[in-house]
Amino acid sequence: MIIDCAVYQDGKRRPGEVALHEAYEAGHADNAFVWIGLYEPDEAEFDSVRREFNLHELAVEDAINAHQRPKLEVYDDTLFVVLKTARYVDTDDTVEFGEIMLFIGSQFVVAVRHKPASALGDVRKQIESRPDLLRFGPGAVLYAILDRVVDDYQPVVDGLDQDVKEVEGEVFSHAGTNPAERIYLLKREVIEFHQAAAPLTEPLDRLVHSLVPGMHGELGEYFRDIQDHLLRVVDNVNGFRELLTSVLQANLTQVALRQSEIGVQQNADMRKISAWVAIVAVPTMIAGIYGMNFEYMPELTWTFGYPLALAVMAGACIVLYRAFRRNGWL
Amino acid sequence: MIIDCAVYQDGKRRPGEVALHEAYEAGHADNAFVWIGLYEPDEAEFDSVRREFNLHELAVEDAINAHQRPKLEVYDDTLFVVLKTARYVDTDDTVEFGEIMLFIGSQFVVAVRHKPASALGDVRKQIESRPDLLRFGPGAVLYAILDRVVDDYQPVVDGLDQDVKEVEGEVFSHAGTNPAERIYLLKREVIEFHQAAAPLTEPLDRLVHSLVPGMHGELGEYFRDIQDHLLRVVDNVNGFRELLTSVLQANLTQVALRQSEIGVQQNADMRKISAWVAIVAVPTMIAGIYGMNFEYMPELTWTFGYPLALAVMAGACIVLYRAFRRNGWL
Amino acid sequence: MIIDCAVYQDGKRRPGEVALHEAYEAGHADNAFVWIGLYEPDEAEFDSVRREFNLHELAVEDAINAHQRPKLEVYDDTLFVVLKTARYVDTDDTVEFGEIMLFIGSQFVVAVRHKPASALGDVRKQIESRPDLLRFGPGAVLYAILDRVVDDYQPVVDGLDQDVKEVEGEVFSHAGTNPAERIYLLKREVIEFHQAAAPLTEPLDRLVHSLVPGMHGELGEYFRDIQDHLLRVVDNVNGFRELLTSVLQANLTQVALRQSEIGVQQNADMRKISAWVAIVAVPTMIAGIYGMNFEYMPELTWTFGYPLALAVMAGACIVLYRAFRRNGWL
Amino acid sequence: MIIDCAVYQDGKRRPGEVALHEAYEAGHADNAFVWIGLYEPDEAEFDSVRREFNLHELAVEDAINAHQRPKLEVYDDTLFVVLKTARYVDTDDTVEFGEIMLFIGSQFVVAVRHKPASALGDVRKQIESRPDLLRFGPGAVLYAILDRVVDDYQPVVDGLDQDVKEVEGEVFSHAGTNPAERIYLLKREVIEFHQAAAPLTEPLDRLVHSLVPGMHGELGEYFRDIQDHLLRVVDNVNGFRELLTSVLQANLTQVALRQSEIGVQQNADMRKISAWVAIVAVPTMIAGIYGMNFEYMPELTWTFGYPLALAVMAGACIVLYRAFRRNGWL
Amino acid sequence: MIIDCAVYQDGKRRPGEVALHEAYEAGHADNAFVWIGLYEPDEAEFDSVRREFNLHELAVEDAINAHQRPKLEVYDDTLFVVLKTARYVDTDDTVEFGEIMLFIGSQFVVAVRHKPASALGDVRKQIESRPDLLRFGPGAVLYAILDRVVDDYQPVVDGLDQDVKEVEGEVFSHAGTNPAERIYLLKREVIEFHQAAAPLTEPLDRLVHSLVPGMHGELGEYFRDIQDHLLRVVDNVNGFRELLTSVLQANLTQVALRQSEIGVQQNADMRKISAWVAIVAVPTMIAGIYGMNFEYMPELTWTFGYPLALAVMAGACIVLYRAFRRNGWL
Repeated sequence: MIIDCAVYQDGKRRPGEVALHEAYEAGHADNAFVWIGLYEPDEAEFDSVRREFNLHELAVEDAINAHQRPKLEVYDDTLFVVLKTARYVDTDDTVEFGEIMLFIGSQFVVAVRHKPASALGDVRKQIESRPDLLRFGPGAVLYAILDRVVDDYQPVVDGLDQDVKEVEGEVFSHAGTNPAERIYLLKREVIEFHQAAAPLTEPLDRLVHSLVPGMHGELGEYFRDIQDHLLRVVDNVNGFRELLTSVLQANLTQVALRQSEIGVQQNADMRKISAWVAIVAVPTMIAGIYGMNFEYMPELTWTFGYPLALAVMAGACIVLYRAFRRNGWL
Repeated sequence: MIIDCAVYQDGKRRPGEVALHEAYEAGHADNAFVWIGLYEPDEAEFDSVRREFNLHELAVEDAINAHQRPKLEVYDDTLFVVLKTARYVDTDDTVEFGEIMLFIGSQFVVAVRHKPASALGDVRKQIESRPDLLRFGPGAVLYAILDRVVDDYQPVVDGLDQDVKEVEGEVFSHAGTNPAERIYLLKREVIEFHQAAAPLTEPLDRLVHSLVPGMHGELGEYFRDIQDHLLRVVDNVNGFRELLTSVLQANLTQVALRQSEIGVQQNADMRKISAWVAIVAVPTMIAGIYGMNFEYMPELTWTFGYPLALAVMAGACIVLYRAFRRNGWL
Repeated sequence: MIIDCAVYQDGKRRPGEVALHEAYEAGHADNAFVWIGLYEPDEAEFDSVRREFNLHELAVEDAINAHQRPKLEVYDDTLFVVLKTARYVDTDDTVEFGEIMLFIGSQFVVAVRHKPASALGDVRKQIESRPDLLRFGPGAVLYAILDRVVDDYQPVVDGLDQDVKEVEGEVFSHAGTNPAERIYLLKREVIEFHQAAAPLTEPLDRLVHSLVPGMHGELGEYFRDIQDHLLRVVDNVNGFRELLTSVLQANLTQVALRQSEIGVQQNADMRKISAWVAIVAVPTMIAGIYGMNFEYMPELTWTFGYPLALAVMAGACIVLYRAFRRNGWL
Repeated sequence: MIIDCAVYQDGKRRPGEVALHEAYEAGHADNAFVWIGLYEPDEAEFDSVRREFNLHELAVEDAINAHQRPKLEVYDDTLFVVLKTARYVDTDDTVEFGEIMLFIGSQFVVAVRHKPASALGDVRKQIESRPDLLRFGPGAVLYAILDRVVDDYQPVVDGLDQDVKEVEGEVFSHAGTNPAERIYLLKREVIEFHQAAAPLTEPLDRLVHSLVPGMHGELGEYFRDIQDHLLRVVDNVNGFRELLTSVLQANLTQVALRQSEIGVQQNADMRKISAWVAIVAVPTMIAGIYGMNFEYMPELTWTFGYPLALAVMAGACIVLYRAFRRNGWL
Repeated sequence: MIIDCAVYQDGKRRPGEVALHEAYEAGHADNAFVWIGLYEPDEAEFDSVRREFNLHELAVEDAINAHQRPKLEVYDDTLFVVLKTARYVDTDDTVEFGEIMLFIGSQFVVAVRHKPASALGDVRKQIESRPDLLRFGPGAVLYAILDRVVDDYQPVVDGLDQDVKEVEGEVFSHAGTNPAERIYLLKREVIEFHQAAAPLTEPLDRLVHSLVPGMHGELGEYFRDIQDHLLRVVDNVNGFRELLTSVLQANLTQVALRQSEIGVQQNADMRKISAWVAIVAVPTMIAGIYGMNFEYMPELTWTFGYPLALAVMAGACIVLYRAFRRNGWL
């Protein structure tokens, strides 16, 4: 699907709608270039574009299949750029990845967007308000899109940061939950995000140092600005990795400790119950002795035999109780 | 065993079967090269090839022994390439490795395949349909085979990804199993696969930057495409390594927690049983006391002595029951 | 807010207060430069500065937003430097980060300070006492500020070192606490500090090797001195990371051991109580037997039946006591 | 002790025994070189050699003391090479290290072997059968010895691989052993072996790229062959390190699980015993009640009092038994 | 404090004591240089030296404050070198660090020693016995001191090796101790030692490759010898780090296992005691039954009622005993 197609001359958008074939022609004018935005194009649409701009078959193949690695490749006089967009989905704490592919020639930009990638309409409007940059030609469009993609990484970093802090809170709280799975899934997400963002540093480095043909020298500083943001993102992501490894380790300690504390409490209960049973067993034994049916048991005939026996029982209990208390068992 | 032997002239296969010695001759024509496919050749067969193309003794030695490291070596005017093929075996979740060795001169390609490596017949057919590439000479064959080998890594990555997800599921499920062994074996597999795939990045880098003699400049972009796929594979494999380390750690937490929860439940049972025993011990003691045979025990002669005793017993039990209940022991 | 604004000529500060617009003019004199200190400037103030010194829009944007990565960027004839200041807050054992941004041209220095960064008034006084350095122009100011920022890292390192030693002490003490959370938070702090300090090594390297335009060659040795301090800081921080990983692991061992020792003690108590109950159970059983009401029980009529029974009971208890004692149960 | 001393001319060994001083002279002929093999030489022997070939004092010092790091050093026109040999000792699963030092000039090779290093007689015979290589001079001897040393690493790798597999088997078996010590000692061995083998990659790299003076260019490919083997060895060793770290972690899980399972079984036993005791306690209590000596206990005079009491006892036992059974306690 | 001050001419020490100001003068002679040894100099002493040799203020500042990072800095025509000395203190198994700073010009060496660093008198004597080296000027002194400092690392490595082996022994012994703290402190020591030794590799590399001005070319080989020793030390230290990480992990396993085994034994004891109590409970219950006072209990009047009851009791006990025995509870 063609989203937008416009011709830019001397940094300004030519007014009016342009059909694809008009755009091709218009793009050959001096100081002009075409910017075509495609959304999951079908083969026919793409074929026209491909032939018009003489795109390399390998780049085209990559552009149709999603799941590429972020990269910037130079094919003769055309650049092929793959970008991974990332979006933090608040509802289920996950990161959603999209893809944008760009073909950039001296007089054209073809932007192919794959499904979950955010629309580029905004980017177009924004850069159109900067004729001073657009004058630098297609490179300015590359800058604008890169800038947006990398800026969009920041909310992901913030979301992950939030998540890391939440699991930290959970690990060290006394709620008694075991966030091992959440930590692990977060780590998985962080690794995936790293794989989306980190490979972009190398192409940006080439852009900063003007090692990519066809980019106006003035843009170098703009690309450096993006690179700087990207490095900050990557630094943060690496920090998350290390923190999550530590928090997983700390979680083991906390879970083990918590379980162990439950066990210790239970053992203390058991000890207490057993101590009471032990105390009760003694008068039971004494009672048993005086319940024996021997004919000659002098105590039985004593007037104060019974109260004495009770006293002995009570005494034994008190002695035991005190001893157990002293040991901390009761 | 000679699998196939063909002469390519100007990017097209010369029709008809060619015997080995005919191929040698034909290969000297302008814009022509021979492509000989061998499958675990015996010494005699190989010796003929070796003498014809003047292959270096060290390369030949490596080609006969399997278990080489992936590499690309330049011997004067001959390239020697070792590739590790990988195949994910669904039936037992393992990865099977094979080997392909290539000798590439300006007018010949000798491909030696070792047992579990997949046949190259397909590759031959595919590249024969691209005379525009075959025109670049033996380098095009190297491209075609490298492309296939690296493309074949993708299903392995997918299989391993599946396995990692399965063990994750197992670790965090409530099935109560201990997948430590499976995680470990998976890690072993991932390391082995990394050792097969990763060393290829360096030779591909040299191919991309045209640092290998005898490769047509136009092929650079094609090799870059392969390199890109390979880097994606290596990225994924490194991700698996890190994930498996984490999941092994998480598994320890889960197993420890699960065992500990069983222990806690058992302790709670024990506490409950002991509490009941303690309750029963009290009326037993009282009964014992009134079972004593003292002559002077006034209570025994009371009319309501017996019901009173029962009431005391019941009362004691109720008091204990409530106390234990309050403590959460019952 | 403008903090200070002065003109330096031949390494000496021109006396008297200077308004902003005067400073601009004065700064064009030979061997002179302006140094303007701003504290969280509002847009209007900054706009005047920006227009006067023709600062690049990207640098200005970075200077207004805090939370930048430490860096040194060259824009045509202006340097833009971002520094992270760090301060160890004793009261709650945390590290507080601030930011200083510098715009450095051949005849001006604009220093922008963000909130928690420490004031630069001291630095100004210190460097003003060194006309031999100030003679080198704005580079001397860069040196002075860098030197202060990196020197201020040392107390942070000392504070973290103290903290690491405290958690070590806690882990290996017998206090029975679990410092897992503190270790983790310390690690988080160390990672954050690393992210503030480590990226500065690269710009300093460029300064040391005179790869930054507009810096007097003599200053190279001064920048090397700073770099040396920075490297020491980074070395220490890396050491902390490794130590904290180890201490977290050691803490798991200590906590597990401590809990386990409590459990062992409790088990020993239980065993002791149970052993006493078992001892008492035996005379209870014997007493029970002689409490049976069979008509023909010859022992009951023996004159010494009762003492004999008591003796048997006592004997059984003694035997059991000795056996349990031998087993270490009592 | 002088083991062997021979002169090689045009790639062939001059027949007959040669005394040391004859060798010195003979070695000055065109296309000739001397190869002297020493075994733990005493100072006198070595001194003669040192003076004859003008060996550097530092190299000589290193050659006499064992325990060097593998290295290749260039002293003016002499190479000094230190190699670590390794041998897997099957009887006690350990790796034994030896040392070989080589002094290589344009017309001589002095090989010094230290005790546990394997004899070089074989190497000499093997390379003597290759006059085409020996013609390249002393470099060919270096190749031959390096080739042997690195080839001899393979059995060590195989032995360690076997050991790793054995500990894996032990960890995941149900034998109930704790191979932590063996894993640790294996890791120690692997680290030691890595320290012996890995430093050789750098000198080999220099040899491959002909950065070492005095080596014939044709030998480059031969050294590359050795380097390739060495890299394979190092790859394997690194794999072992990672595997052993994982297996140590997995072992902790297995040991903890196993112990915990024993504990769970014991607890289940205890619960069962306690449950039986609890069941028995109830009829004991009832019997106690009817053993009381109250004068007015109507049940005692009932004709069916006794069987009724028994029935109540039995009933209580059955009810309890069923309840315990339902809870899974019996 | 001035320790020693001597003038060396043509590789030989000029006889007699020399005062500081004489030394300054004498050092200007051809082929001569002064070597001044200072021990924690006071400001006055140092100031004289500083002015005489025109030392850079930054270097002087570093020389007075200890706690520098090992480094080699070039200031115009003066080298400034910081070295960390290390000494293994047997009595308490710790490593003691000292510092030596060197200022080296074309005709002077100023060596500043800080407190715990070992005296350099020995080094002076040793190098004075080598006029062939001393002839190379101050570089020879640098060599001699570096050689001593690095040689002195070896006993530290040996001491740490011994310590590592001791904790290994402790971990895997059956002594039942928990060496977690010792392992941790050892790791701390190893990291500290690494920070003292490892930064020296880079300056040594520059010395080996003659990238430091003013060093005689012949000394390159001597510096390489030191570098080689240093690399061996660093290799060993890295090995210790990895081993200590593993041993800490193994210790966790061992401690957990040991504690768990104690628990298992205790549980087995408890089970045994409980089993005995259960056995005794049965005859107690039977005795209780026949102790009931029902009027109509036919068994009570049987002639053999009593022996029968005893037989039933004994029988029940035997049956239970056998059952428990079969279950492994007794």
